[in-house]
Amino acid sequence: MSTVAAIVAPSVDAPLEPGTVTRREVGPKDVLIEIVWAGICHSDIHTVRGDWGPQRYPLTVGHEIAGVVIEVGGEVTRHAVGDRVGVGCIVYSCRECENCLAGEEQYCLRGMTGTYGAVDRDGTVTQGGYSTHIVVDEDYVLRLPETIPFEKAAPLLCAGITTYSPLRHWNAGPGTRVAIIGLGGLGHMAVKIAHALGAEVTVLSRTLDKRDDGLALGADHYYATGDRATFTELAGSFDLILNTISAKLDMNAYLRLLSRNGALVTVGASAEPIRISEFTLQAGRRSLAASGIGGIAETQEMLDFCAEHGVAPEVEIVTADQVNEAWDRVLASDVRFRFVIDASTFAAAG
Amino acid sequence: MSTVAAIVAPSVDAPLEPGTVTRREVGPKDVLIEIVWAGICHSDIHTVRGDWGPQRYPLTVGHEIAGVVIEVGGEVTRHAVGDRVGVGCIVYSCRECENCLAGEEQYCLRGMTGTYGAVDRDGTVTQGGYSTHIVVDEDYVLRLPETIPFEKAAPLLCAGITTYSPLRHWNAGPGTRVAIIGLGGLGHMAVKIAHALGAEVTVLSRTLDKRDDGLALGADHYYATGDRATFTELAGSFDLILNTISAKLDMNAYLRLLSRNGALVTVGASAEPIRISEFTLQAGRRSLAASGIGGIAETQEMLDFCAEHGVAPEVEIVTADQVNEAWDRVLASDVRFRFVIDASTFAAAG
Repeated sequence: MSTVAAIVAPSVDAPLEPGTVTRREVGPKDVLIEIVWAGICHSDIHTVRGDWGPQRYPLTVGHEIAGVVIEVGGEVTRHAVGDRVGVGCIVYSCRECENCLAGEEQYCLRGMTGTYGAVDRDGTVTQGGYSTHIVVDEDYVLRLPETIPFEKAAPLLCAGITTYSPLRHWNAGPGTRVAIIGLGGLGHMAVKIAHALGAEVTVLSRTLDKRDDGLALGADHYYATGDRATFTELAGSFDLILNTISAKLDMNAYLRLLSRNGALVTVGASAEPIRISEFTLQAGRRSLAASGIGGIAETQEMLDFCAEHGVAPEVEIVTADQVNEAWDRVLASDVRFRFVIDASTFAAAG
Repeated sequence: MSTVAAIVAPSVDAPLEPGTVTRREVGPKDVLIEIVWAGICHSDIHTVRGDWGPQRYPLTVGHEIAGVVIEVGGEVTRHAVGDRVGVGCIVYSCRECENCLAGEEQYCLRGMTGTYGAVDRDGTVTQGGYSTHIVVDEDYVLRLPETIPFEKAAPLLCAGITTYSPLRHWNAGPGTRVAIIGLGGLGHMAVKIAHALGAEVTVLSRTLDKRDDGLALGADHYYATGDRATFTELAGSFDLILNTISAKLDMNAYLRLLSRNGALVTVGASAEPIRISEFTLQAGRRSLAASGIGGIAETQEMLDFCAEHGVAPEVEIVTADQVNEAWDRVLASDVRFRFVIDASTFAAAG
């Protein structure tokens, strides 16, 4: 075991502060990663603040991890010292259930082991990427293509796969009309990926404030949902709507924007119950669904797709001592479009 | 115009009574049908009792119609005098919108013309099948295969297509695990059709009272939803769940019975809002959807499928003077499994 520098949440409501986390010895199938960049995901905040249930503190979050392999266990074959690698939301799963066997570990029937806040095989609570090092089973470690700028790779491990997976599952591509609700960390990746997949992309945002950004990111159209006329004008217009925000929405209003057989897929993970009308679904055989991140194989596919198509997030780099401020700005939707922490500053912050 | 005998609803809360409805002259594209059998659908009751919105009275309902062509307009090519034909829930549509052009008139973007209670092209309110005759544009009239017993054909026009369409759309067939919620008029057709399609069929009913019936209809398994252990035992067990009942259900409990990528499709048309949890959907990329009847071409396909596979509803035949009592029994779930009215008794009832 070793103790490494980290930023930790001491409790559900206290500011983050410098501290340490303990990493296990490198086992035969493990890789030890020196973290270089750590993305800030809205989920980090939801988790620490207890929005999704109680946590064990102190807790270090972060599941958008880009780094370099500095040690490998004796049985490791997939990664080597010096490799640029990534770790996302999953660090282990049962490997035996039908979903794991299908390569969809995110839906592991025994519960995948999340990168932070989950009970690991040894009974300890997993600790995330706001730290200098992490030890992960090699099967849950991704290869980062060299053509993706290193500091931009981290957000792909959550924001990238969370939007790529449903866009692929619901067949976004040439000839499909895709709307993205929200232009934050997830939303801006959804726009870029849907555009790269060849879909016609519309952003639905509260205001037109980010319109120029949205069009520059690849959107074909941009509408303000604060303007009720939008819902009349766009009725029946989309094959797929991806909801990237976690705030409560009038889902019936958005469902009515779907054409026949359309699907509204939410990835924002709101704990609020959703209220919808069966008649709204029935008028066009519409579906409401939700999707969570993606499996390891699909995450690798997404990274390779992004490398091939030059897709990468827009990031703002911060240092360890700026993380509390960055969280406040995420909550205020004041980020273009993803914060990434320079992991070399974690040690100095302590 | 001609006046024909019918059973009419005089108001939202009065019993049905003998009366008349007016049928238009037979136009160039119309067929005049002598109704022989008229099915009783739960929708008839919902509509008359105002559950789905206000109606114009007096109103004659009925959208499960089997009869014989007795006159055709000069331009009719699809049907001839003497043909056994059926009319379901749709008697007209715009024919120009993308959904009509796709043969899915049930989702006509301008609103399909329902068989009763809808405003027809001439401004009159359409009147349904609890009557001796009806005049319908030939394109909305179905051919009834000779091998389907005549008195059993009527319920296929609504209960049959309402269950066939989603079972086909969501690919019920060999290797798929399909659950049917409710074993009433729709449910028993769903069991028969899903079984004929080759799926593994489970009935989810409040009690085990109809278990023997369910298994005889083609179900492989039968569970009582009144027993909470059912929800534990069947967690993650189904690719498709078809909800055929209109009463309010705990949808989250049923969603948890879906496996990865599973869909819960409701056809029961409840006006109650549905409350679901995004996390329940997200745990396995589940979908909630709703489906309404089917298009004309698919209805013909369903009739031909049922003829080929020997699928037909179980019916109880009633006379015109028994319709009020039959409605009470439908509301009490006391019918095995669909009432069909002998249309020759409408005239005598007056």
